[in-house]
Amino acid sequence: MDKINAGIFIFDGVEVLDFAGPFEVFSRTRLVPGLESRRSEESAPFHVFTVAKTHGPLVAIGGLTVTPRFSFEDTPPIHLLVVPGGFGVRGLLEDPATLEWIRRTASAARRTSSVCSGALLLARAGLLSGRRATTHWSSFDRLAELAPDAKLERDSRFVDDGVWTSAGVAAGIDLAFHIVETLCGRDVADDTARYIEYPR
Amino acid sequence: MDKINAGIFIFDGVEVLDFAGPFEVFSRTRLVPGLESRRSEESAPFHVFTVAKTHGPLVAIGGLTVTPRFSFEDTPPIHLLVVPGGFGVRGLLEDPATLEWIRRTASAARRTSSVCSGALLLARAGLLSGRRATTHWSSFDRLAELAPDAKLERDSRFVDDGVWTSAGVAAGIDLAFHIVETLCGRDVADDTARYIEYPR
Repeated sequence: MDKINAGIFIFDGVEVLDFAGPFEVFSRTRLVPGLESRRSEESAPFHVFTVAKTHGPLVAIGGLTVTPRFSFEDTPPIHLLVVPGGFGVRGLLEDPATLEWIRRTASAARRTSSVCSGALLLARAGLLSGRRATTHWSSFDRLAELAPDAKLERDSRFVDDGVWTSAGVAAGIDLAFHIVETLCGRDVADDTARYIEYPR
Repeated sequence: MDKINAGIFIFDGVEVLDFAGPFEVFSRTRLVPGLESRRSEESAPFHVFTVAKTHGPLVAIGGLTVTPRFSFEDTPPIHLLVVPGGFGVRGLLEDPATLEWIRRTASAARRTSSVCSGALLLARAGLLSGRRATTHWSSFDRLAELAPDAKLERDSRFVDDGVWTSAGVAAGIDLAFHIVETLCGRDVADDTARYIEYPR
């Protein structure tokens, strides 16, 4: 079976759980239930990796140092794009190279998603135009400015309207499970939730 | 106010959410509620950092590359020790330097905690003797072997009996909030949960 390449964008000032939550869920998903299947990649439907603008370590919020697996230049094709949020988003909203990479990657991907204030980057890249969407509660106003014709859903844990967006931080875990369920079925999502002991 | 040094042990084969969940919760906790207080460390009650046996990058489960802030040799005093789990635990159960570091650090710390199969390391270090404890469901039998006089609580999300232990992976987030509530009060824990949109 061809694996789904899940590319998680990371950057200086990314919120740790915004990227680590979906990373955990996708990287631990297995089509074969239980413990043993998690010891290999054999029945893993996703190939999960991080991507940053350039190689070399970057610093997430709180001071966690993470080295991306790939850069914009050498990433394999991304089928499922995940754009997390964090205070680092603010600077990236004015970075043409990042916005262009998101636009190009989303256009080639089967699915695009954001966690938390990552939705601001999708909005700035023009990807939320005309769609229902959500973000962290502190970013509602900014999202409305960046995508005036998006329909903001303030009370949703996540929104699925062609592009997937989630509310803040931990809501990215719920969105990740929704994506697993959509792409791999309910049983696979439930088994993965049981494995990581996440109450869906 | 003196900050609480929260040292999170990491190692090759650590489960991502096991360390990233508590890292997120402790590093985002603020005594002053809301968004703005999160932009600085001023009202942060915790100083959170990762510690590994040696310097240099290590690879967590799923292929996430993380560089520890400190090594066993140069870590600042740890007041709150967090020992996560993951497949990498198995090898560490036979590593005298790691077990000795855990024993020594726990002995000097005000509080010691584990997430998931990190409890096996605490058990092997003799820290769960006579205590109530829990771990990931797949590690119940191994924990009973390593700490035959510990009282295993199979249905608890986390256990607080001098040493804090949590169930698998995501349960570490619940334990982290319990720790925040214990050390900083209910309001601070609730505000942090609201900030990271985690339903406690």
